[in-house]
Amino acid sequence: MTIHTFEPSIYWNTFGSHPPVLRIADGDTVITRTIDAWGLDAAGKQVNTGSNPETGPFYIEDAQPGDTLVVHIDSLTPNRDFGHTRSALAPNVVVPWSARDLPPNTKIEWQIDRGANTATPGDPVSGFARRAYPLKPMLGCLGVAPDDGQAISTSTSGNFGGNMDYRGFKPGVTVSFPVFAPGALFFLGDGHALQGDGEIIGTGIETTFDVQFTVHLLKGKRVHGPRGENDESIFTVGNARPLEEALQHATTEMYGWLQDADAYHLDPTSASVLMGMCVEYEIGNVFDPAYTVVCKLAKKELR
Amino acid sequence: MTIHTFEPSIYWNTFGSHPPVLRIADGDTVITRTIDAWGLDAAGKQVNTGSNPETGPFYIEDAQPGDTLVVHIDSLTPNRDFGHTRSALAPNVVVPWSARDLPPNTKIEWQIDRGANTATPGDPVSGFARRAYPLKPMLGCLGVAPDDGQAISTSTSGNFGGNMDYRGFKPGVTVSFPVFAPGALFFLGDGHALQGDGEIIGTGIETTFDVQFTVHLLKGKRVHGPRGENDESIFTVGNARPLEEALQHATTEMYGWLQDADAYHLDPTSASVLMGMCVEYEIGNVFDPAYTVVCKLAKKELR
Amino acid sequence: MTIHTFEPSIYWNTFGSHPPVLRIADGDTVITRTIDAWGLDAAGKQVNTGSNPETGPFYIEDAQPGDTLVVHIDSLTPNRDFGHTRSALAPNVVVPWSARDLPPNTKIEWQIDRGANTATPGDPVSGFARRAYPLKPMLGCLGVAPDDGQAISTSTSGNFGGNMDYRGFKPGVTVSFPVFAPGALFFLGDGHALQGDGEIIGTGIETTFDVQFTVHLLKGKRVHGPRGENDESIFTVGNARPLEEALQHATTEMYGWLQDADAYHLDPTSASVLMGMCVEYEIGNVFDPAYTVVCKLAKKELR
Amino acid sequence: MTIHTFEPSIYWNTFGSHPPVLRIADGDTVITRTIDAWGLDAAGKQVNTGSNPETGPFYIEDAQPGDTLVVHIDSLTPNRDFGHTRSALAPNVVVPWSARDLPPNTKIEWQIDRGANTATPGDPVSGFARRAYPLKPMLGCLGVAPDDGQAISTSTSGNFGGNMDYRGFKPGVTVSFPVFAPGALFFLGDGHALQGDGEIIGTGIETTFDVQFTVHLLKGKRVHGPRGENDESIFTVGNARPLEEALQHATTEMYGWLQDADAYHLDPTSASVLMGMCVEYEIGNVFDPAYTVVCKLAKKELR
Repeated sequence: MTIHTFEPSIYWNTFGSHPPVLRIADGDTVITRTIDAWGLDAAGKQVNTGSNPETGPFYIEDAQPGDTLVVHIDSLTPNRDFGHTRSALAPNVVVPWSARDLPPNTKIEWQIDRGANTATPGDPVSGFARRAYPLKPMLGCLGVAPDDGQAISTSTSGNFGGNMDYRGFKPGVTVSFPVFAPGALFFLGDGHALQGDGEIIGTGIETTFDVQFTVHLLKGKRVHGPRGENDESIFTVGNARPLEEALQHATTEMYGWLQDADAYHLDPTSASVLMGMCVEYEIGNVFDPAYTVVCKLAKKELR
Repeated sequence: MTIHTFEPSIYWNTFGSHPPVLRIADGDTVITRTIDAWGLDAAGKQVNTGSNPETGPFYIEDAQPGDTLVVHIDSLTPNRDFGHTRSALAPNVVVPWSARDLPPNTKIEWQIDRGANTATPGDPVSGFARRAYPLKPMLGCLGVAPDDGQAISTSTSGNFGGNMDYRGFKPGVTVSFPVFAPGALFFLGDGHALQGDGEIIGTGIETTFDVQFTVHLLKGKRVHGPRGENDESIFTVGNARPLEEALQHATTEMYGWLQDADAYHLDPTSASVLMGMCVEYEIGNVFDPAYTVVCKLAKKELR
Repeated sequence: MTIHTFEPSIYWNTFGSHPPVLRIADGDTVITRTIDAWGLDAAGKQVNTGSNPETGPFYIEDAQPGDTLVVHIDSLTPNRDFGHTRSALAPNVVVPWSARDLPPNTKIEWQIDRGANTATPGDPVSGFARRAYPLKPMLGCLGVAPDDGQAISTSTSGNFGGNMDYRGFKPGVTVSFPVFAPGALFFLGDGHALQGDGEIIGTGIETTFDVQFTVHLLKGKRVHGPRGENDESIFTVGNARPLEEALQHATTEMYGWLQDADAYHLDPTSASVLMGMCVEYEIGNVFDPAYTVVCKLAKKELR
Repeated sequence: MTIHTFEPSIYWNTFGSHPPVLRIADGDTVITRTIDAWGLDAAGKQVNTGSNPETGPFYIEDAQPGDTLVVHIDSLTPNRDFGHTRSALAPNVVVPWSARDLPPNTKIEWQIDRGANTATPGDPVSGFARRAYPLKPMLGCLGVAPDDGQAISTSTSGNFGGNMDYRGFKPGVTVSFPVFAPGALFFLGDGHALQGDGEIIGTGIETTFDVQFTVHLLKGKRVHGPRGENDESIFTVGNARPLEEALQHATTEMYGWLQDADAYHLDPTSASVLMGMCVEYEIGNVFDPAYTVVCKLAKKELR
């Protein structure tokens, strides 16, 4: 149950079996930092030129393929006074015939007021859209080394997690990942001070965070993709394109979870009916190369 | 501001320019009934053999193509003691390789306790899935006659509304539709006592309702598809396949609404940024021939 | 085996159960005309203002729901000296980020040289794209009245046929349709003097045709969507969105055809393997509300 | 213009920046071998346990990011007397409701007669599907190291090529790839003795090949994905999911190629019109994680 403080100096632009920056054990807590999606650190200095540079990887002792890594996000604290967003809806979230009517896609600077816990956009945002928005910090990216020795761009996601851009990855959530490589090799990055469903302008408010997280290892327990829980709900995460396939992954994994003899142990019909009556879907992103759909069940439906 | 009580005797299996059953005026209220998706009425009698038979159409005086029809759902009251669901996840909501592992797709009978406001499934549902679920009545179908003189099956939906199976179409919601035909010709049906997001077992708890609704007419105001509001939010509705296209329709319509000089009057960049930070998506159905995605904005974000 | 000559005076903008213009019998031949997609006739006169106005419907005596209507396209002969296309790729056939770079979408006039059997585009087409293209006449639309009493816009397609925009609907082809309404009610229109796969500029060379076709009726023989054959191949047609679903419909129907005891009578494994080794796909359109994918097998693979 | 003979002893299961097995120069020819998709070599010995093990990578001297690598497939010669296919249509190529009716998905052994140039399936294939099929050898996989230092599974494809399973990758074709890594790092594997469009049973006839290929380097010439030509046509290749996005990539790249001042130099309208009238699409695969669509233009249309 060690608490590690780790100051990153290198960052990765792929999720892969890279040399660990720190070795930690089941139950350990890590206090560290993330830089922003464009490679700027807390001081505004360009320290990486790729997309979504990641802090890590953290090697979890004893983690082996076939295990499950559980990560609890203890806290996400914005640690600088500015962030950036894009300024235009992505052309793939409007009907194709409207794509040419979108505004110029520039970079907008936001002032972050850490005392008030708000962010306010600068020019050219105007009208009531130019106001102080309450912060809702979340991690755009978190995940482990993928299977088959792959190294996959931090622009996308898959069964290993990755760039899921789901606003539910916020303080208090617990996220589980399949372990594909020895040590699991956990990465995190791409902090958003605020983001709507779908990441439909292609960014949240991209900024830097102080992060604290705690890991647990489930030996011999296998999941097929990211899943998680918070105080109210359990959820499964599908990362794929098109959107329907992301939903299929999330739905199939929830359906399996409900039938799992070590979990909810419903028969297939009962799991189907419960899901048909109670399931909720959330859209993480519809912008990245793989989209993210979340299938949720309120815990009150599970007893 | 007349209150009409209308007892239906015929039902339609297409949304089309059929002979009106009642002529009503801007501001009028109608008290009527819907039969269930399989054509059974409140007494359990088979009164129509098609899919999603509709009550209506109601002719709204003065409504002309280019106007907008606004319908407020005043109340939806289950009026019998049973309903039905299907028993298996639809094969299109799980990954294709899992489709063959789905359970048999039979019809499950539910007991509706109108005093307790709950419904309980019968055999073969078991475990904690077999319990009393609180009712959340909603209309699966509501809409108007489509454009171009079309008559479109009540199994599907489009810019005219239709079989959207969105759980947000519940008492207290206001829904607007484009008017394509003289009189608008409003239809409603397919009541669900309860349904999760997506209608992923292909049904809600299909049952019959006493319904009260009130109509308003916006002359010369044009919308491009269904939209609505409730106490907390405004929303737009996209009906299309695949899921991404339904999302595109809803997103494009919200983007236009925010820029509408008679509504929120934001410039394109400000509308984009507001949506990027605050939008929420809900999935109505991923089962019907056209899927339904809802794009929502909380009213507190709009001032 | 009567040969009917029919001069149309009204045209339909939906496929539906409209009053027949002519009653014909199994084995009969019809000589008639089609106007172009914008409602201009052979003289260039605007005779209908909707999209894809259809000639018909032709009532086939004895045709009943559950039968199959077989239509042989005997000849398609351009009968005027001009046609039109659009000028720009449709925004949905390029990657969304490129949609704003498409050229203006204007109407281009083409000169049709009936002696040389070619068409040549006018301004602003230039370079080697401005030349005489050999004509390959095809029907964009052909189909029957849909099921459930629907009336469906001639802009789209389905299991009843419709606006499929498949270049294989040319002289010499035989096309079969399910019969959903008494008399089948066959429609045709939307002649293209030339079109590439996909109809990716949203039009072929839209022009008017003299048409001759011959019908046959298969009593009690049921197909689930359009299918056909020509000298070299048999094929099935899937009309749906997205493209993968159109392919699924076509593939499923071919798979059934190969197993049909009255046709090829293969077992499921043998049908799968034959298709896996020999099937060819063609894309009819990726422009209309429903896309069209064709699954073909060369006749030489079928013996 | 050296001819290298290279006997592989290791194989890769990702496309990535792995140590080169051979360094070759612009204009060189390589004679080598591929093992089959399941890791069996020409002698039937299991020499790799992953999916689609690749021969290579070949380092092309002077190739740098931003260049284009051109590979001509000189010959593909089956070098053993057996191959394998799967036995069932993939569940994603039929409508979801039919997926449960597919036959068992077993492995079928095929006898390859190299003298007669045919292959014949064994049990349980029966009827006219059990016959000698003429061989049409093709490479399922060919590609280069991806960008951003990624290592991507040989089960999928992208702008670097990969597991495209397109029957047009046969002797006589020339294929160009963007260079992302120093030396380009060319890989090849996954030979199919025969395959239909779409690879709809998830395999071709998987077997081993003697391969001869010749490389050329285009310095400073940039393409955005695989493209190619054969005697009759030029073509572009889109690798993505869903199918429509693969088509969008291929279409966008062809549209750019036609406008390229060093190539066909058409203006946007003329490129659009030419494509609208003449383009052909082929489906490589609809089975792998990324689907493959090919956009073709006959060379006779380009002068």
